[in-house]
Amino acid sequence: MSDAVKFVLDESRLPRSWYNLQADLPVPLPPVLHPGTQKPIGPSDLAPLFPEELIRQEVSLEREIEIPGPVRDIYRQWRPSPLYRARRLEKALQTPARIYYKWEGVSPAGSHKPNTAVPQAFYNREAGIRRIATETGAGQWGSSLAFAGALFGIDVTVYMVRVSYNQKPYRRALMETWGARCVASPSMETESGRAILALRPDHPGSLGIAISEAVEVAAKSDDTKYALGSVLNHVLMHQTVIGLEAMEQLEMAGDYPDVIVGCTGGGSNFAGIAFPFLGAQLRGGRKVRIVAVEPAACPSLTRGKYAYDYGDTAHLTPLVKMHTLGSTFTPPGFHAGGLRYHGMAPLVSHVQELGLIEPVSFHQTACFQAGLQFARTEGILPAPEANHAVVAAIQEAVKCRESGTAKTILFNLCGHGHFDMQAYMDFMAGKLTDLEYDPTELAMALAGLPSVT
Amino acid sequence: MSDAVKFVLDESRLPRSWYNLQADLPVPLPPVLHPGTQKPIGPSDLAPLFPEELIRQEVSLEREIEIPGPVRDIYRQWRPSPLYRARRLEKALQTPARIYYKWEGVSPAGSHKPNTAVPQAFYNREAGIRRIATETGAGQWGSSLAFAGALFGIDVTVYMVRVSYNQKPYRRALMETWGARCVASPSMETESGRAILALRPDHPGSLGIAISEAVEVAAKSDDTKYALGSVLNHVLMHQTVIGLEAMEQLEMAGDYPDVIVGCTGGGSNFAGIAFPFLGAQLRGGRKVRIVAVEPAACPSLTRGKYAYDYGDTAHLTPLVKMHTLGSTFTPPGFHAGGLRYHGMAPLVSHVQELGLIEPVSFHQTACFQAGLQFARTEGILPAPEANHAVVAAIQEAVKCRESGTAKTILFNLCGHGHFDMQAYMDFMAGKLTDLEYDPTELAMALAGLPSVT
Repeated sequence: MSDAVKFVLDESRLPRSWYNLQADLPVPLPPVLHPGTQKPIGPSDLAPLFPEELIRQEVSLEREIEIPGPVRDIYRQWRPSPLYRARRLEKALQTPARIYYKWEGVSPAGSHKPNTAVPQAFYNREAGIRRIATETGAGQWGSSLAFAGALFGIDVTVYMVRVSYNQKPYRRALMETWGARCVASPSMETESGRAILALRPDHPGSLGIAISEAVEVAAKSDDTKYALGSVLNHVLMHQTVIGLEAMEQLEMAGDYPDVIVGCTGGGSNFAGIAFPFLGAQLRGGRKVRIVAVEPAACPSLTRGKYAYDYGDTAHLTPLVKMHTLGSTFTPPGFHAGGLRYHGMAPLVSHVQELGLIEPVSFHQTACFQAGLQFARTEGILPAPEANHAVVAAIQEAVKCRESGTAKTILFNLCGHGHFDMQAYMDFMAGKLTDLEYDPTELAMALAGLPSVT
Repeated sequence: MSDAVKFVLDESRLPRSWYNLQADLPVPLPPVLHPGTQKPIGPSDLAPLFPEELIRQEVSLEREIEIPGPVRDIYRQWRPSPLYRARRLEKALQTPARIYYKWEGVSPAGSHKPNTAVPQAFYNREAGIRRIATETGAGQWGSSLAFAGALFGIDVTVYMVRVSYNQKPYRRALMETWGARCVASPSMETESGRAILALRPDHPGSLGIAISEAVEVAAKSDDTKYALGSVLNHVLMHQTVIGLEAMEQLEMAGDYPDVIVGCTGGGSNFAGIAFPFLGAQLRGGRKVRIVAVEPAACPSLTRGKYAYDYGDTAHLTPLVKMHTLGSTFTPPGFHAGGLRYHGMAPLVSHVQELGLIEPVSFHQTACFQAGLQFARTEGILPAPEANHAVVAAIQEAVKCRESGTAKTILFNLCGHGHFDMQAYMDFMAGKLTDLEYDPTELAMALAGLPSVT
């Protein structure tokens, strides 16, 4: 084992291809169904929303898909991202475990999201598209697409969940500095938004509603496409640069993970770090435990149902088979807004059904406590979403201390918390509580799932 | 010339020594004077404030001072920092100039300040010190020392200029997440603070007052030392890792600067990028134009007097010869709080007197406009302080376009603007105006300079 703390890959070793887990699945993904006919959809059904190349990637079974040159050129601004050995954290925990973390906060937008925002903007631009509509919760995805849009000259409109729009004006300002237009959702700009505001003028919004608005805009317009920051197969695949780099960096360190930890909202940063290792395992390589960490207040993997469901509230999206809390479920307002989604990526759900990953959940105060310990040892202040990975990694390291085993733990630190200081202030002031979802609402949302199998 | 956009130094090429410009000065620095006797001070006069090794570095004439191993170990977390070729900005400006920028926002605290916070905390820790008092304006220095204190187990108290304390709660929260105590200055904790509050209970504070408070605490306590984030010789020297790395990176690029640009408040990030190149020039190397950029509303280099003055308001510090607006001068409240200081580093002032650098000044709206253009081309959102370097670099590049000359421009992008979004929002909303200092106040402050020559 190397005694270095930072493992930097030379730029020449920036991955040339993304890794597509679909190539190695022992059982293929269930088909995506048309919301009207409930029959499997074809590429033409998605054409109003996405450029052809992204649709091709969504269903591709090729193991490797080449990263275009212009995308690699932009990746190079912050990639390969560093892999760190968390020696100061290890010491504080008095653990024999070796803890490594991949640090995605070095991107201009401060999270892993530009890994897919950049290729999505690129493929749209290649297809002649000049406008993209999207949604955002806490704002990490919206700001990443705003950044990518600025680089490719694409106008970006972001429907931002209203409660976040009001609570996080600085995230909104960040999108605007990159030239994007940011609209509070539900808005009066779409039928979906107007219908909801008619029922409840002060509706706080949800990711499901914001997706409906952005999809509607794209579907109705000839010159606008839609972009999603997580959930879809091609989005998860773009994130595999994280795990592919980590594999090479751990090789530099002379190590290999026993446990991989990632936080899961829609599933993209988790898939990014885990899928390349999972693929290696499926091809006969070393087995690795993979832990998916979700918020206890929005527990799609641990308490949801594996069923066909809509990705949005207005039921404009296709039906996908996933772990879901039901598209009408509204999670309570905990701070990790990027994890407040009723569903889960079909690929992540599928590998959980195959028994290849372990889901766990944590409440938010435990996550912030872990984030503070991480900041005071490793020096980096994580985003509230990333704190879910931190707390689970710490828990694994503590288990190692208790059992006296020196395991190798790898986790993805998906973003920084610079735009989440209010949450840290509330936590340090003792004002933050653990929020619970409403079990009756969850039961109703699950009972209302579409009757498709 | 290389066609790469990012130049990454291997960790093995992290500088092993800081560069001390004092070794190469054609004329030595004027002596520092005791505030009581007005005679040159000796090391023992500084002993209540600083550990011995930092006092030694302050007056050293050695060209290279070795960076201790534990400091290099922490530097490695984010150093060598990347050097970028700003190709997208060049294209937008249609300039034949080659623009390079060194990016210091990759540190955990988001600016160049940890380059000196870490060694300062280290030397204090080596001397057995467990508590440090300091001041901060916008908060970049305070948060950097908080970060360094957390790593070395040193309790940090930060006296933060009250107006910033109230306007920037998130910067304060960042210090607290790293375990520092942050106090609004003027405070009731010190004689200096109480005296000012007695005269004006709602005093907004200033860097000069906050320095008085921190110095007083250190001077009166056996177990507490003081730390300064800029101005002093040893602080500027610690920052030379920036320029030393940039030299090697430009060599990788096959290039050498014709012009170097840095923003100047106290002078440390400017010295960090410029002094290694200036030293090479003084030793017979290639001549380079060096441009120091300051805010038009706090113009110590362009409108101040080169004279002996105090570093603080309560006149507790020694007298240093520098460009100063007078220690009673209160700059207007523009957004680049890190540049709101009445004085300038003696070393920067000295090389200006020797005709080795060119000072220029800009108003804040021009700076924010440049920052926005930078964000939309290069993707990185600069701090308001850094925007002063951006605007001057752009101006140099535009001159190249107009004259058709392909010069090489290097500037230091000293930090990110993630904690300055309110300023960007105000600018984008058209609410930001150019602030002017009060010429009568400046004349009075200059008239009140101590009569020492």
